[in-house]
Amino acid sequence: MSENKIPYKIYLSEDEMPKAWYNLRADMTNKPAPLLNPATLQPMTAQELEGVFCAELVKQELDDTTPFFEIPQEIRDFYKMYRPSPLVRAYCLEEKLQTPAKIYYKFEGNNTSGSHKLNSAIAQAYYAKHQGLKGVTTETGAGQWGTALSMACSYLGLDCKVYMVKCSYEQKPFRREVMRTYGASVTPSPSNTTAVGRKILERDPNTTGSLGCAISEAVEVAVGTPGYRYVLGSVLNQVLLHQSVIGLETKIAMDKYGVKPDVIIGCAGGGSNLGGLIAPFMGEKLRGEADYRFIAVEPASCPSLTRGKYAYDFCDTGAVCPLAKMYTLGSSFIPSANHAGGLRYHGMSTTLSQLYHDGYMEATSVEQTKVFEAAEVFARVEGILPAPESSHAIRVAIDEALKCKETGEEKTILFGLTGTGYFDLYAYQKFNDGQMSDYIPTDADIAAALEKLPKVE
Amino acid sequence: MSENKIPYKIYLSEDEMPKAWYNLRADMTNKPAPLLNPATLQPMTAQELEGVFCAELVKQELDDTTPFFEIPQEIRDFYKMYRPSPLVRAYCLEEKLQTPAKIYYKFEGNNTSGSHKLNSAIAQAYYAKHQGLKGVTTETGAGQWGTALSMACSYLGLDCKVYMVKCSYEQKPFRREVMRTYGASVTPSPSNTTAVGRKILERDPNTTGSLGCAISEAVEVAVGTPGYRYVLGSVLNQVLLHQSVIGLETKIAMDKYGVKPDVIIGCAGGGSNLGGLIAPFMGEKLRGEADYRFIAVEPASCPSLTRGKYAYDFCDTGAVCPLAKMYTLGSSFIPSANHAGGLRYHGMSTTLSQLYHDGYMEATSVEQTKVFEAAEVFARVEGILPAPESSHAIRVAIDEALKCKETGEEKTILFGLTGTGYFDLYAYQKFNDGQMSDYIPTDADIAAALEKLPKVE
Repeated sequence: MSENKIPYKIYLSEDEMPKAWYNLRADMTNKPAPLLNPATLQPMTAQELEGVFCAELVKQELDDTTPFFEIPQEIRDFYKMYRPSPLVRAYCLEEKLQTPAKIYYKFEGNNTSGSHKLNSAIAQAYYAKHQGLKGVTTETGAGQWGTALSMACSYLGLDCKVYMVKCSYEQKPFRREVMRTYGASVTPSPSNTTAVGRKILERDPNTTGSLGCAISEAVEVAVGTPGYRYVLGSVLNQVLLHQSVIGLETKIAMDKYGVKPDVIIGCAGGGSNLGGLIAPFMGEKLRGEADYRFIAVEPASCPSLTRGKYAYDFCDTGAVCPLAKMYTLGSSFIPSANHAGGLRYHGMSTTLSQLYHDGYMEATSVEQTKVFEAAEVFARVEGILPAPESSHAIRVAIDEALKCKETGEEKTILFGLTGTGYFDLYAYQKFNDGQMSDYIPTDADIAAALEKLPKVE
Repeated sequence: MSENKIPYKIYLSEDEMPKAWYNLRADMTNKPAPLLNPATLQPMTAQELEGVFCAELVKQELDDTTPFFEIPQEIRDFYKMYRPSPLVRAYCLEEKLQTPAKIYYKFEGNNTSGSHKLNSAIAQAYYAKHQGLKGVTTETGAGQWGTALSMACSYLGLDCKVYMVKCSYEQKPFRREVMRTYGASVTPSPSNTTAVGRKILERDPNTTGSLGCAISEAVEVAVGTPGYRYVLGSVLNQVLLHQSVIGLETKIAMDKYGVKPDVIIGCAGGGSNLGGLIAPFMGEKLRGEADYRFIAVEPASCPSLTRGKYAYDFCDTGAVCPLAKMYTLGSSFIPSANHAGGLRYHGMSTTLSQLYHDGYMEATSVEQTKVFEAAEVFARVEGILPAPESSHAIRVAIDEALKCKETGEEKTILFGLTGTGYFDLYAYQKFNDGQMSDYIPTDADIAAALEKLPKVE
């Protein structure tokens, strides 16, 4: 099909939607390192993990050889409520930038959770329901994951307890109301409702919280409440598996129009969006069938890939979770509160960490004022107010497109637009008022946090 | 095509999108009554209207015989940024209600303005731009129209001054930030920046404002500033014309699947959504080609069709605008501040008023706690947090579907889901906290406002 036939938005039909998730690990030669039991330093067994996670999700977590997992019909029906998501040709942005580059983005924000998080939330809630559980606990940072899980639980009739990073809870009271509308309970973290929360508050009563803290609290409650399990919105292999639906849909849509991306860009906090978006493309690269450039974009204030260490670390601040081998800033690292919203996690998906370590992927970090500048340009020409997280990818996509303008290269750039910024107006207000500042941790800040890494190997 | 083949969401391809707007008035035997000059009580001439509105829009406003107006290519390109909007088969809601009814909704909320308002905003901004204007002024109630216009103006490089109903301005500070992000200036109304605003404040310093007040201010500024015109987001014939894209897309999508609605339901404030949604269906009814039931849903706190009078009235509180013959509660009527968000306008589109008067359409009013109950049910099963305005239509669609459950009728119900409630969480919070109350104006309240109607005929 000729280039000029490509519509602004490419929607797949329901028949074309993926029927199985793709497990990227199956095609990796160097598999991601296993989770370790923090007491024994031995790989976590399925049995051990099942105290925290649903049994079926544990299977998915540990399986690094099966390439495809069928998506249960009930989940596929739920996906049809808000999927397929559009693959958008950014004609307006291209024109604004006067670039010869062709820019595409996969937009995951057209649902009430406002992001891609719903893709894994419904899967995790589904397996919890089918295990006969009463409810689940979780953490949320910017609130997107908590909202997504609330929606999924409400749909399936499960109870949902959310621990929300305190600075987000305060900056985003309306996120709490969305979760309440979907029947969830929301507690600011760290809180006095858990032993780990009380301990963290004792040490630092003024802490603005972190995903690591909130995870510790949610896990404690899940393990201590009969009929409950813990679910996590990013980082884990199972989450990347579910999020592969993003990349699979993208690839089907691009193949349909004979388009092949040269560069694939995604923001990276825990890695679920990026891992999902790149999955089928990275699979081709790993199998030697095609080559792509992949760029992970992280905030300069929380730069785990670009300035962290590839080492075993705790997934949470309270050190109650298993150890994961990943690029990490240390589980005691808490990014500055001036940093807007998500992408505040100290570590990174073990799968993405391994791929980055093996040179299959690049990473870069960007400062938030530059991110919001890109967000504003994008909002004005593409008509979507992007989430601050997604805007990290927009920033780098624009920069790559501007490089093409200089060199005259007609590269095809694909990026993940993970969500909308409707609940991030406090940050936009700061930006509009010229009061947004940048924060970059010093080498000493990072070294201090890394010093506390657990000793493994 | 067989019934079970209907997907959850029907998206038209770009080729299938309407290329012309449909002017419902062309098929009306009793045309809507003309606007009158408030000084002479004679029909407003094009020349008089051009002091307030763009010339091309005045043509559209006055033309009640041309059935189709071609949509300029630049507007069609802008539409492609967020249109076609999905026509959704509400399988999940049907299952929840256990109704034999088949429910469809046309969802207009998948854009940053959060509503259908963008359809007319881009058209009005386009004609202003092509007339060589510097900018436009407008009013906004819940903020959707102001946001839509900000987006359209930013896209075309026009200045945009928004007067925002004070109670919305206070309840929705984040709406203001979206408009600012798109480069608009936003003033709470009534304000001290205009003569009419000062007069209204003098009379009632504690007023929470109304659309009627905000219109008066915006018109005053437009008329008094060289290179500016005023634009309006609802009520006018031109706006219903632009909004016909909603109904046209819906009809194309339904025809494609051989589906014919029995009942068509829309919320009605000024009438732009309802008028747009029903346009091509009402056209068929007027031409005797098909029959449909149409239901306008208005809030019990601002019931212009169900409790107002069909008479000439001012479109604004300050009485600076032309007179329109419409169902009205009187331009001095200000709905209770406890009423959430939009649908606060004292009058109704002259076109819809005439159709209602002639018996082509029904109207009903609903109380807001019932509306939010319906909104919550809908959000939980359909995964979209609806705007309070749209939820008026949801309420009646659910009630109609429940009637079908009683009678066993397999009716096809279509309603307009005009937008999302992401900026209405203050109202949702009140509802979640059990603190939302209902307000119904007394007969004396309404009689008092109607007594001040201008004497015409």
